[in-house]
Amino acid sequence: VVAEGRRRKFWGWGYEDEQLSLEETRKIAEQAQGVLGFGAEHISAPARITDLDLPPARRLAPPSQLAGICHSDVYERAAHAMGKSYKDVVRGFHGEIEHPPDLVAFPRDEDDIAHLLEWCSQECIAVIPFGGGTSVVGGVEPLVGDAYRGTLSLDLGRLIGVVDVDPTSRAARIRAGTPLPLAEAQLRQHGLTLRHFPQSYAFATVGGSLVTRAGGHYATGGTHIDDFVESVRAVTPSGVWESRRLPGSGAGPSPDRLLLGSEGVLGVVTEAWLRLQNRPDHRATQAVEFPTFLDGAQAVRTLVQLGLRPANCRLLDGGEAALGGVGDGKHAVLLLGFESAHFPQEGELEDALWCCRDFGGKPVGTPRVRGPQTTPPQGGPEQRWRDGFLAAPYLRDSLVAAGILVETFETAITWDRFAAFSTRITRAAQDAAVDVCGAAAVNCRLTHIYPDGAALYVTVLAPARRGSEIAQWDAVKTAVCEILLDAGGTITHHHAVGREHRPWYDRQRPDVFAAALSAAKGAVDPKAILNPGVLIDRAAPPPITRERAGR
Amino acid sequence: VVAEGRRRKFWGWGYEDEQLSLEETRKIAEQAQGVLGFGAEHISAPARITDLDLPPARRLAPPSQLAGICHSDVYERAAHAMGKSYKDVVRGFHGEIEHPPDLVAFPRDEDDIAHLLEWCSQECIAVIPFGGGTSVVGGVEPLVGDAYRGTLSLDLGRLIGVVDVDPTSRAARIRAGTPLPLAEAQLRQHGLTLRHFPQSYAFATVGGSLVTRAGGHYATGGTHIDDFVESVRAVTPSGVWESRRLPGSGAGPSPDRLLLGSEGVLGVVTEAWLRLQNRPDHRATQAVEFPTFLDGAQAVRTLVQLGLRPANCRLLDGGEAALGGVGDGKHAVLLLGFESAHFPQEGELEDALWCCRDFGGKPVGTPRVRGPQTTPPQGGPEQRWRDGFLAAPYLRDSLVAAGILVETFETAITWDRFAAFSTRITRAAQDAAVDVCGAAAVNCRLTHIYPDGAALYVTVLAPARRGSEIAQWDAVKTAVCEILLDAGGTITHHHAVGREHRPWYDRQRPDVFAAALSAAKGAVDPKAILNPGVLIDRAAPPPITRERAGR
Repeated sequence: VVAEGRRRKFWGWGYEDEQLSLEETRKIAEQAQGVLGFGAEHISAPARITDLDLPPARRLAPPSQLAGICHSDVYERAAHAMGKSYKDVVRGFHGEIEHPPDLVAFPRDEDDIAHLLEWCSQECIAVIPFGGGTSVVGGVEPLVGDAYRGTLSLDLGRLIGVVDVDPTSRAARIRAGTPLPLAEAQLRQHGLTLRHFPQSYAFATVGGSLVTRAGGHYATGGTHIDDFVESVRAVTPSGVWESRRLPGSGAGPSPDRLLLGSEGVLGVVTEAWLRLQNRPDHRATQAVEFPTFLDGAQAVRTLVQLGLRPANCRLLDGGEAALGGVGDGKHAVLLLGFESAHFPQEGELEDALWCCRDFGGKPVGTPRVRGPQTTPPQGGPEQRWRDGFLAAPYLRDSLVAAGILVETFETAITWDRFAAFSTRITRAAQDAAVDVCGAAAVNCRLTHIYPDGAALYVTVLAPARRGSEIAQWDAVKTAVCEILLDAGGTITHHHAVGREHRPWYDRQRPDVFAAALSAAKGAVDPKAILNPGVLIDRAAPPPITRERAGR
Repeated sequence: VVAEGRRRKFWGWGYEDEQLSLEETRKIAEQAQGVLGFGAEHISAPARITDLDLPPARRLAPPSQLAGICHSDVYERAAHAMGKSYKDVVRGFHGEIEHPPDLVAFPRDEDDIAHLLEWCSQECIAVIPFGGGTSVVGGVEPLVGDAYRGTLSLDLGRLIGVVDVDPTSRAARIRAGTPLPLAEAQLRQHGLTLRHFPQSYAFATVGGSLVTRAGGHYATGGTHIDDFVESVRAVTPSGVWESRRLPGSGAGPSPDRLLLGSEGVLGVVTEAWLRLQNRPDHRATQAVEFPTFLDGAQAVRTLVQLGLRPANCRLLDGGEAALGGVGDGKHAVLLLGFESAHFPQEGELEDALWCCRDFGGKPVGTPRVRGPQTTPPQGGPEQRWRDGFLAAPYLRDSLVAAGILVETFETAITWDRFAAFSTRITRAAQDAAVDVCGAAAVNCRLTHIYPDGAALYVTVLAPARRGSEIAQWDAVKTAVCEILLDAGGTITHHHAVGREHRPWYDRQRPDVFAAALSAAKGAVDPKAILNPGVLIDRAAPPPITRERAGR
């Protein structure tokens, strides 16, 4: 977890040198207090690495050829002990590191990975594949139960780089450990882009995106990494799993689609051929105010059903817009943006605005248009919102320091159920947070727009009680997830399942599919060493409900 | 297999009343002789149902509640004995029905299916799900080996209809047995369309399309049925497998994607929620001539990489264009068409033509433009070609009668390898057919265009030797498939795997995935009754190659 001589914080977002001083944190907390009406009373400083008192590492003796790539020092164990969920950040902030891995391995190549898997299979050591460590669902925490002799975090940080570029097909072979910014920097030299910008962009890796079916911040069209995949290569305990590089195929169920979303339980993805795009030169953006969030939702549904495919189509409710500095708090705001590598986009923007007006949408200011010869416009609501979007994980560290609970829920639902669903979920979040914390600010937005539905993203901010943060978080999380599942949504649209979403994932997925997936894992990972507890249990497949046909 | 009082031919395409007379067939054969230089010497008449001497049905005694839906008369057994590949049509034409099912069941609902699967699991009877019976890869032939006490063809012909329409999300719940034309007719009442038009459209079903990952005849954008799926419901020997209806989800590997392409080996798909579209009102089409097929390929690559998404973008080589009546035989012809439910498409067509000119493309005639108020233009190259496309399966019956071998190969490859690949495959087909048959006409076209590659479709016509057709077909098929796989293509882009493509599919798919799929099947279909021989073997999973990592 070292880049350019900088070391990442073991507990929060970003590099150690990016940690704000107590004084700077206090200022942010006071601002938050001004906006939210809570927080800022007790500013704490995060635990230092020297403060940590980790559970002792169990003694695991890797074969000599692997010894040099395995580490067990406090920093590496702490930095690989958790992801970056609110729960993780709170625990790390307080120095409460419950399940650090016994070893952290940094394989240099696929051979190292194969040997590690072989050794761990023999020795019954759980292996947790680790990319950027940005999981917000407990996907990389070595919380594996008692069935294992030890735990090993397998960090792909040495398998990096764009290793092949095919400009004719616009595709590249990229190693799994490549951080997304590095992939972009190397692709930029070819005038190409992966165009995959999740909120975790700064640290997320290509492999992590693949195994979690990550969604980029674009609202329509190519946004899920699933759709960019030509082929995937993984090392499993049973050998190498690699598909052919193809633009399309109908040869049986897609092998790639079984690895996508597998969250490390079937194998360690080592590289993939991914589809690329030309860098966009034409942009046309505009913010639009709507009387209500539901009016805005009608507008975006209509415009995607018309066949328009805006790159940005973020609909923010009043609170979300105000927090992002792009609205008055009373109106919903739609951040609308079209882009193309080749064609001016004013026409598309005009069509979309025409459609927004039908639902009471009022354009804010004038359209911002950029062509290949134009200097990119600075500022503007779109830019402000995007800056805030990428800064949010940093801000969260400060909010934790200020004793504010921060959780997000993301899901998706078809349009026919959308209005009732979004109302019910935001109300459930509000009720749960007020109930548990005494006060709350709950906002929501639409992150991805489909012709048949949308992805809803709910942010909860609430005053946490020092020492009870995890219990409070757990209570809010559980209450909202129950409602979300009951109301027909998916437990996750792009945050993945990990260990946190398991109870609801288990209810959401078809039981017969669970049995199929467990059996598949049994064939590929017979000793069940890969990321135990994520997606499926080590134990036998769950009993199949003999639900009778007919409805 | 009865619709509106008409009975389908047991051996070929279409209804019994559509069978041409010997005289009509002779005329077609003579025309073919004129164009191809072979065929027409011996016109035969197809076997009649009364000529058939089927292997006797093994005695299977369904439980009383199922007895009424199970049939074993000659017509039903013959009509469910094969699909519609050249090999199937030749055998059927000659009355050589080798593997008819012992029983044909027509379940009325999911309960019937569950009971059938239960009974067949107990009795070790192989179950072959049967939709429209249009498989060209042996997907529905009860050729299951000696391990079973009998075979049952499970015809979904009674599970038909659009049973739920959600106009807000533009989606519908459609029963698996619904023939595509019926689905379209029922959706049209809502102003909606599934817009899925494979060449088998006249008889293919929704369920068959799903389990074979069918591709429609549109060239770009929404053409694969995979992308239309919100949720799938299947009855398996272990219970019902049903996913949530969602516009998008990141909750683990997609359960739907494991059923898509499963070709009946995991369960019997009974219905699905599918995404729909508004019916297109605006169209702009134009044919473009290119000096060579490869020039045309460069043009279509460029235009899709520019972000243009033509609905039709069929590039035909000279021979294919001439056969289709849309070219002089010397030039490649691109049939280009844009469509939209809402926006005029002349601009898109102009952009595409501008791009074609860069590669020597010359528009033929004037653009044909249609808006909501315009009467659809009749005739034109696009219309002529489409009529021929849908008539091709009928024509094939006549070519078989005229002793002409007809086979098609379809595959896909990325653009970097395209030129060498297409040259090699068409040459391999030409060489193999001439070698085996003494003469051949080999043509090719691009059926689907992706930003990173294309689907290539090769048609082989050759003079068959009466009585040796199957051996000749087999020799040509094998020779071309070997080259195709060796050259890096997929063994199938949209025809599926079935029993015919097994040898090459087994080499194409990752061995570790094969083990995962076999294990998944073992969990879902423990008695291995579902479509044995398709995709995977009944036996234990194939040995996993312990291919070492590193390349």
